[in-house]
Amino acid sequence: MTLDTSACAAVSEARLQQRHDRLAAIGATPRGGVNRLALTDTDANAQAMLVDWALQRGFRCSRDEIGNLYIRREGTQSGLDPVFMGSHLDTQPTGGRFDGAYGVLAGFEVLEALADLDRPTRRPVEVVAWTNEEGSRFQPGCMGSAAFTGVFPLERMLAAKDRDGITAGEALAAIGRAMPLPARPMASVRPAAYLEAHIEQGPRLEAAGATIGVVSGIQGIRRLAVSVHGEEAHAGTTPRAVRRDAVSAAVAAIAALEALLHDTDDVVRFTVGRMEVAPNSPNTVPSRVDFSIDLRHPDADTLRTLGDRIEAVACEAARSRRCTAAVTQVSHVQPTVFDDATVALVREATRLLGFPSLEMPSGAGHDAMYLSRICPTAMVFVPCLGGVSHNEAESATASDLAAGTRVLAAALVALADA
Amino acid sequence: MTLDTSACAAVSEARLQQRHDRLAAIGATPRGGVNRLALTDTDANAQAMLVDWALQRGFRCSRDEIGNLYIRREGTQSGLDPVFMGSHLDTQPTGGRFDGAYGVLAGFEVLEALADLDRPTRRPVEVVAWTNEEGSRFQPGCMGSAAFTGVFPLERMLAAKDRDGITAGEALAAIGRAMPLPARPMASVRPAAYLEAHIEQGPRLEAAGATIGVVSGIQGIRRLAVSVHGEEAHAGTTPRAVRRDAVSAAVAAIAALEALLHDTDDVVRFTVGRMEVAPNSPNTVPSRVDFSIDLRHPDADTLRTLGDRIEAVACEAARSRRCTAAVTQVSHVQPTVFDDATVALVREATRLLGFPSLEMPSGAGHDAMYLSRICPTAMVFVPCLGGVSHNEAESATASDLAAGTRVLAAALVALADA
Repeated sequence: MTLDTSACAAVSEARLQQRHDRLAAIGATPRGGVNRLALTDTDANAQAMLVDWALQRGFRCSRDEIGNLYIRREGTQSGLDPVFMGSHLDTQPTGGRFDGAYGVLAGFEVLEALADLDRPTRRPVEVVAWTNEEGSRFQPGCMGSAAFTGVFPLERMLAAKDRDGITAGEALAAIGRAMPLPARPMASVRPAAYLEAHIEQGPRLEAAGATIGVVSGIQGIRRLAVSVHGEEAHAGTTPRAVRRDAVSAAVAAIAALEALLHDTDDVVRFTVGRMEVAPNSPNTVPSRVDFSIDLRHPDADTLRTLGDRIEAVACEAARSRRCTAAVTQVSHVQPTVFDDATVALVREATRLLGFPSLEMPSGAGHDAMYLSRICPTAMVFVPCLGGVSHNEAESATASDLAAGTRVLAAALVALADA
Repeated sequence: MTLDTSACAAVSEARLQQRHDRLAAIGATPRGGVNRLALTDTDANAQAMLVDWALQRGFRCSRDEIGNLYIRREGTQSGLDPVFMGSHLDTQPTGGRFDGAYGVLAGFEVLEALADLDRPTRRPVEVVAWTNEEGSRFQPGCMGSAAFTGVFPLERMLAAKDRDGITAGEALAAIGRAMPLPARPMASVRPAAYLEAHIEQGPRLEAAGATIGVVSGIQGIRRLAVSVHGEEAHAGTTPRAVRRDAVSAAVAAIAALEALLHDTDDVVRFTVGRMEVAPNSPNTVPSRVDFSIDLRHPDADTLRTLGDRIEAVACEAARSRRCTAAVTQVSHVQPTVFDDATVALVREATRLLGFPSLEMPSGAGHDAMYLSRICPTAMVFVPCLGGVSHNEAESATASDLAAGTRVLAAALVALADA
C-alpha cells in the first residue's frame, strides 16, 4: 500500500491547539471542562465559530434537517460522493474539551492543511459536526448520524423532548433562526467513506505507551429506561409493611441488576447514570423512580442475552417491595466491525508516520457506529490522560492530538483520491 | 371537669366544607390534590383568601418575621396571653386537601362559631397559619413554629434556600410586597395554650372505627442529608474495577441502612424521599448522589441510638464502592409528650360530645411539636380515608371534620376562659 503523507507535514500542532482552546471557551466551566449541551445557544455558538473559520478559508457550509453541520472543500470531480470526516460539538453537562471537539477540529485541520498546500483531491471532502451525539439533553444520542444514516426516522428524532419539554425540532428551529445556513437535505448526499478521530476515553493507549489507536470496531450498546411505580405515603405514619416505596424498590432493582451483570473479567459495562425521584420530598414515601440503564459489551450474543434478562430481574425486585417496574428499550445498537480496507489505511498511515500504536475496539459509542452502516468507516484514537472522559478533567496532549490528525490526513487523502 | 359545649353546636359542617373546597382550589392538581409549596405565589393566594374571610368577620390579621399569619378575635381581657389554634397552609408538591388546611380552617370555624354566638372569651383567641410546615421547598420543615418558639434561630430559617437558590427570606419579602399585612414581631406575643386539629395521616382511627384521636404526643424525628461522592467517568470505557460510581455507592448505602433499620415490630420509620444525581446523564458514571433520610421513632433512646449508627453504615457502604459519603444532621426532634391537663380537656370534650375515640401518639410531625415547648399543647385527630396522606388522594369526611372542630371548640372555650 502506498500512501501520500505529504499533507501530514502541513498539519499544524499549534493551530490545532489554538482551535481547541478557542472552542473550549464556548461553554467553559469553572473547573476547566465544557458544558455544551446539544442544540443550546452554547452549541450554536460553537457551530458559529466553526462556520466563521470555514468561510474565512473559502469552504462551503450547510446544514441538514437534523442540524448536522457540513463544511465542504470541493474536489476536482465535484460530482463524486464526498469523503466525510467528523465527530460532534455537543458535550456532557460536565464534559471535557476533547470528546467530540477533537474529531471535528482534526477534520478541519486536515482541510486547512490541504488548502495550505493547494493540494487538490479527486473527491470533495467534508467535515461534519453531527447533532447531539452525547444524548444528554435529548435521547437517544448520535441523533444526527442516526437520522442521516436512516437508523431512526427523522420525525422521531425531532420529536424527542428534553427535561423541560422542549423538542429537538423546536430547539433546532431556534438555532436556524439565530444562525441561518444554506439547507442541504440529508438525502441529497452519500459519503464515499467516513473517518472519525477521537480521544480514546479509556486507559489502554496510555497504559501501552501508544500514540495511535487503530480502532477495529465499537462494542454494542443497549439503553433502557426503567420506571418504578409505588404509592405516595406519609413518611411518619406509614408502616414499612404497607409501603409501596419506589426508592426502596429502585434500590433493590439496581442492586439485583449489579449482581446479574457482575462478570469476573470486567468486560460488561453497566451504568445507571440518571435517576429521577417523584415527588422527591424528604418526608413523603416516593411514588416513582425513573432510572436509565446503559449496558455495553463487545459480543453481540452476550449483549442480547444479558439485556434481555434485565426486565425480569427489575420487575421481580420491584415486586419484592410491592411496587411495579416498567422497562422500555431506548436503543439497541449491535457491536460494530469497521471496514477492513479502511482500517488498513489507518494502520498503514500510522506505520508510515512511525507512531507506536495499538489495535483496539472502542469502548464508547461514536457517530462512526452509524456511518459504518452506509459507507466504509474507520476511527483514529489518541490517548487521554488517565483514560478520563465525560469529565471536566479530560485532557490530551497537543502532540498526540496532532499525531492523530496526521494519521487522519494520510488516510483521508487516500480515500479522497480514490 | 365541666366544659361549655354551647359553641360546638354553632360549628357549621357545611361552612367548614365550603371553606375546604375553596381553599383546595388554590394550587389544585388535576388528580384532585393540592400543590401549594411554602412561600410560593400559590401559598400567598391561600393566605390572602383566609385574610379576606377574616376581615369580613372583623378579625384582625398580622404577620411576623418568618411569615406566620395570625387571625385574632379579641378577648374581654385583651391584655392576657391569647390561646392559639392553627396548623399550616403549605402542602407537599403532590399533597392533599386536608393536611394542614384542616387545622387552620377548623380554628377559623371555631372563631366564626364564637362570633355567630356573640360568645365572648376572656382571653383573645388567635388562629395561626404557620410557615412552611412541610419542609418540601425549604428545609427544615415546621420553619414558622420553630422560629416562633426559638427552636432554631430566625436568621437560619430565613437563609434556607430552595432548589433554585431562592432563600426563604427572599420569598417572604416578595409575598410581603404583594400582600402587605400589619407586622407583629414574634417576640411580642406568647400563647397561653395551643390546640391543633389535624387529619391522622395514618390508618389507626379508621381501623378502630373512631371519630376522634386524642393525641398523647408526637414521635421523634431525625432528618439527615447524605452526600455520596465518586468520580465522573465514561460509561462505555471505564471498567467496574476502577469506577467510583456514586449511584452504585448510594444504592449500597441505602440497602445497608434498610438492613440496619429493619425492626420486626415495624415501629421504626425510615424514608429516603429525596434523591439527586449528578451529572444525571445516562452515559456518564455519576459522580455525586445527595439523598435525604427521615427517621422516626416514639422512643427517644431508640431514635438516638439508631440515628447515630447511620453515618458509619453509609460511609462503609460508600467505601465498598470506592466512594465517600458525608452525613449531616438537618434536625433532631425528640419525641414530644403533650401537657396532661390540655390532653384531658380534649378527652373530656370528646366524651361529652359522644364521639368514639382513640388515645394515640402522632406518627407525623406537627407544629404542635414545637409549640408544646413553650405552652400547654394538645392535638385533635380525625380519620382520613385509608390512612393516606402526603398524596393527592387524601380524603376525610365532612362529618368527621366537623366532629373534630366541635371537640376543638369545647377545649378552646375552656382554655380561653381560663
